[in-house]
Amino acid sequence: MRVEPPIDSLRESAAKDAFERARLLVAEDLERVNHLVVTRLESTVPLIGELARHLVAAGGKRIRPLLTLLSARLCGYAGDRHIALATCVEFIHTATLLHDDVVDGSDLRRGRASANAIWGNKAPVLVGDFLFSRAFQLMVADGSLRVLEILARASAVIAEGEVAQLRTTGDLGTDEARYLAVVEAKTAALFEAACRVGAAVAGRGRAEEEALATYGRHLGIAFQLVDDALDYAADPARLGKGVGDDFREGKITLPVILALARADAEERAFWKRTLEDLDQGPDDLARALAILARHDAVAATLERARAFGERARAALAVFPAGPHREALSGLVDFCIARAY
Amino acid sequence: MRVEPPIDSLRESAAKDAFERARLLVAEDLERVNHLVVTRLESTVPLIGELARHLVAAGGKRIRPLLTLLSARLCGYAGDRHIALATCVEFIHTATLLHDDVVDGSDLRRGRASANAIWGNKAPVLVGDFLFSRAFQLMVADGSLRVLEILARASAVIAEGEVAQLRTTGDLGTDEARYLAVVEAKTAALFEAACRVGAAVAGRGRAEEEALATYGRHLGIAFQLVDDALDYAADPARLGKGVGDDFREGKITLPVILALARADAEERAFWKRTLEDLDQGPDDLARALAILARHDAVAATLERARAFGERARAALAVFPAGPHREALSGLVDFCIARAY
Repeated sequence: MRVEPPIDSLRESAAKDAFERARLLVAEDLERVNHLVVTRLESTVPLIGELARHLVAAGGKRIRPLLTLLSARLCGYAGDRHIALATCVEFIHTATLLHDDVVDGSDLRRGRASANAIWGNKAPVLVGDFLFSRAFQLMVADGSLRVLEILARASAVIAEGEVAQLRTTGDLGTDEARYLAVVEAKTAALFEAACRVGAAVAGRGRAEEEALATYGRHLGIAFQLVDDALDYAADPARLGKGVGDDFREGKITLPVILALARADAEERAFWKRTLEDLDQGPDDLARALAILARHDAVAATLERARAFGERARAALAVFPAGPHREALSGLVDFCIARAY
Repeated sequence: MRVEPPIDSLRESAAKDAFERARLLVAEDLERVNHLVVTRLESTVPLIGELARHLVAAGGKRIRPLLTLLSARLCGYAGDRHIALATCVEFIHTATLLHDDVVDGSDLRRGRASANAIWGNKAPVLVGDFLFSRAFQLMVADGSLRVLEILARASAVIAEGEVAQLRTTGDLGTDEARYLAVVEAKTAALFEAACRVGAAVAGRGRAEEEALATYGRHLGIAFQLVDDALDYAADPARLGKGVGDDFREGKITLPVILALARADAEERAFWKRTLEDLDQGPDDLARALAILARHDAVAATLERARAFGERARAALAVFPAGPHREALSGLVDFCIARAY
């Protein structure tokens, strides 16, 4: 008797294929980005290279530089400035990861020990600053004030989003709109900027740049919402970070916001104790998962992620069909379906 | 009977006068910088403004933006771009202060509770990132790639210097040359860049820019060496930070390096226990001060600071005499004499 694979695993495998096709389309560009990441991380200070190589070796999906590369090519760009600029985007992303892990006290990153778990908080703060500065040096060498403007603004918005998130942490009054504003700043701003830089380097008109920016922003929101859902749903071995991290840190993410909106008095008291007062016992994560399941909160979060994904895809309509547009569209599937 | 004031207090008062004269010479410019610092710190995220205002209200000498203002005017600059660029320099400095205090776990800054002592480590890391990004946004608005290049490079060098310092901490093998390389990176690079930006905005030739860079670099080294000396000598109420902070953190600064070079076996064992193993008892700071005094290590550190100060002053010789050159020369006296 033949056993049918479950529908979710089919979807997931199709999404992975879409991701691989996107990477293959700009495989040579990506290779050059990887090379530049390694060479531009070199410093006369050995600890910088050590720590940076730890992160680089851990891999990561390189989805943000991929957005820059694909956006530039979609806009017909035939030069090679997009290589250095995609590297800048990855450096800024890596700097924010280093600082986030210090802020969150995370022990895992990309399935390996986080930098702060190995080196303590000091080096990751300072190496993050180094990566950030190095990114700006690369942009200056490129010489486009427009690109500098896009990425300096994105960096400021990301920091603002992270600070805003400190205040929503443990605050059960955080509603969906306020939460989405944080997500738009802390995550979507860099997805948007990564795409915008691709259009800018190609010297395309404002309409194309705005379309790619809209695509990137909505893709970024979808990506973060899936991340939030996975934190309450994923197999930790596959995701590379712990399930329940957000719960343990008292972060108010969309699954919790949706469950709170439907909570009875007892559930509300549970969330208050565990997330606001951070008074958690060994069985509380399981109970949180049960409450979320009762209200379909994770499924509803993924539903919203899909809707943002569709808005991302719709923004691509101004471009003619072709392999690069298909690749960007495939990245939407990938971002959504990694939740299955 | 008339009591003569001690010679050191006369020197100190003359140096303070020199500092005030320098500030008065560009008083209107400084006022505009202070205004811009406050307005450009505004963010839609209230915590950013709160934390930033805490630092700004604490004051600080604004010596780095003062260098940009005076350098620009010395080079005959008559526009107002130097205002925003001096603000960038102050933002970068403030960002590094926030991150330094997190890295060092300092409780005091400018005589007040440090940001991390009030808000914990999270907000200062992120607000530092925000300030850094905001500085680059200001530079982009100014539009000079040369200025961006100078300050992006300085930022990378500062971060490298801070990381290098992590490795010298607790390492009794750190010699004077290696220590000076750290100082040149972590402190002098921003002094140098602050001056260089002033020359660049005035559009002066390379010779003037290099002269001001040399002035700034040597002034920065002198400033840091005096800081190191004060950490083992100052009255904590006047300095605004604790005496013995470097000792408690196991930092190997020049006074210790000079004392180590002359140490007998017993003293060497003392430094090893207290700085390398960080095994310190309540009487150890007093003993450290006694050992430093025995070898004149603080005085020898100040002697070296004075020599760097003289090299800074000598670099100004390419400029004609006048109030701005005098003001920069007076800043050398101020940086040195605050140690008396």
